[in-house]
Amino acid sequence: MKKLRRSARLVDMTQYLLAHPHTLIPLTLFSEEYGSAKSSISEDLSIIKEAFESQGVGVLKTVAGAAGGVKYIPQVNQEHSKSFMATLIEQLAKPERVLPGGYLYMSDILGHPTTLAQIGKLFASAFADQDVEVVMTVETKGIPLAYATAAYLNVPVVIVRRDNKVTEGSVVSINYVSGSSKRIQTMSLARRALPEQSRVLIVDDFMKAGGTVRGMIDLLQEFRATVVGCGVMVETADVSERLVDEYISLAKLNEVDIKEKHIQIELGSYFQ
Amino acid sequence: MKKLRRSARLVDMTQYLLAHPHTLIPLTLFSEEYGSAKSSISEDLSIIKEAFESQGVGVLKTVAGAAGGVKYIPQVNQEHSKSFMATLIEQLAKPERVLPGGYLYMSDILGHPTTLAQIGKLFASAFADQDVEVVMTVETKGIPLAYATAAYLNVPVVIVRRDNKVTEGSVVSINYVSGSSKRIQTMSLARRALPEQSRVLIVDDFMKAGGTVRGMIDLLQEFRATVVGCGVMVETADVSERLVDEYISLAKLNEVDIKEKHIQIELGSYFQ
Repeated sequence: MKKLRRSARLVDMTQYLLAHPHTLIPLTLFSEEYGSAKSSISEDLSIIKEAFESQGVGVLKTVAGAAGGVKYIPQVNQEHSKSFMATLIEQLAKPERVLPGGYLYMSDILGHPTTLAQIGKLFASAFADQDVEVVMTVETKGIPLAYATAAYLNVPVVIVRRDNKVTEGSVVSINYVSGSSKRIQTMSLARRALPEQSRVLIVDDFMKAGGTVRGMIDLLQEFRATVVGCGVMVETADVSERLVDEYISLAKLNEVDIKEKHIQIELGSYFQ
Repeated sequence: MKKLRRSARLVDMTQYLLAHPHTLIPLTLFSEEYGSAKSSISEDLSIIKEAFESQGVGVLKTVAGAAGGVKYIPQVNQEHSKSFMATLIEQLAKPERVLPGGYLYMSDILGHPTTLAQIGKLFASAFADQDVEVVMTVETKGIPLAYATAAYLNVPVVIVRRDNKVTEGSVVSINYVSGSSKRIQTMSLARRALPEQSRVLIVDDFMKAGGTVRGMIDLLQEFRATVVGCGVMVETADVSERLVDEYISLAKLNEVDIKEKHIQIELGSYFQ
């Protein structure tokens, strides 16, 4: 046991809390670690709480009682998120992003850790009260986004594969119809990858008609899971029949003029 | 401008530094943000530095002069890493992980954000001095690992695809021979995904003969990139001819007895 001064304790507790979001930490853990009275630890926590809230880092929830402690819940404020998304939308609207089929090139954005962390924190904030147990996505481009979200929720990621060549023991496969291309495709998940009756948040980078997300929802029924939410980064507006009802999007792609290379994109449903 | 007390500054600077690894932050940024003298900021930083070092969070490097500032370099100490890996190896050695072909089921481990963060920090520590500009991996299972590493290095991730159906504009594809199965396979990367002459760190979850990593190295030549390092989580020992010379592994799989479901695994080359 080492005896630490308040200043050193504050630094250390801050980094510990940030590294353990959505985790109930008993005050005794800190008081034993630092050889400090619980009352001092409580004072430290109220300093951290105030700083986190004023900087938009998140909230500290205190749970009283013998089984109590403190929990860091990552939260972004709506204003910060809007200005972040406005910048992102500006980037997304660049003409060189137009891809065949009306898709957008987004791999650079989906590869950038600071951007991903912000989007992940946004999704984690939006679904903070849903008791998410697992974040699910389908390979490939949604994976970094799912991981970023899961890091802030402190839950595991499960990745659905787009083939059935998965060599991971017993596998559940379903066929689904890609809503936009109308082709029949397969997605698979190893039986052991997801405990039955999990509470699952679906995350993906792009949604047109929603066939892929619909496929994931159907696949989840095989695992008797509950879909507690669905977050997509970009949705397209020109969809005659959406295959998914409940989801949030961060951006909405209204029009892609492939010939003129003009992109019309705005804030998504999360901000309405 | 808000005037903050030392205690609040410490919390805020700690979270800011943790969110911006490998980034030179001018002291003026903090002194202006908090309305504090540079001398006070310097004192704050020495408190944070000491706490980070004693807790194994990382080091703070101070760069003097007009263009100077402070930089947080994530670092794990060898002892912590060894005990973390020892626990991981225990998990990996469980008989139910044996898969056909002598592979191991690792998706649960590769889906867990705390575990991934620790492995990512380990790789980021190992290659901290290599001026890494991009982390590269090939889909699918290595992606979370690459992202975790990139987050600590604060550089983008580039994902090589296993097919050539990539609709991302001009694409570079190569054929490579999977070292263990001897099958010819294809991997592709969009031309615009990687600037020429980048310094690239390759990260993957599993290496047998090294055909996949060799393929990535060959692909990188097309981009005139420099491979500054290669980190794999698990390598297998029973390889007659390794196709890659320089790499670090965190664990070495010596033997998988498929019939008896016995796994013999130990610390990898990084710890030798």
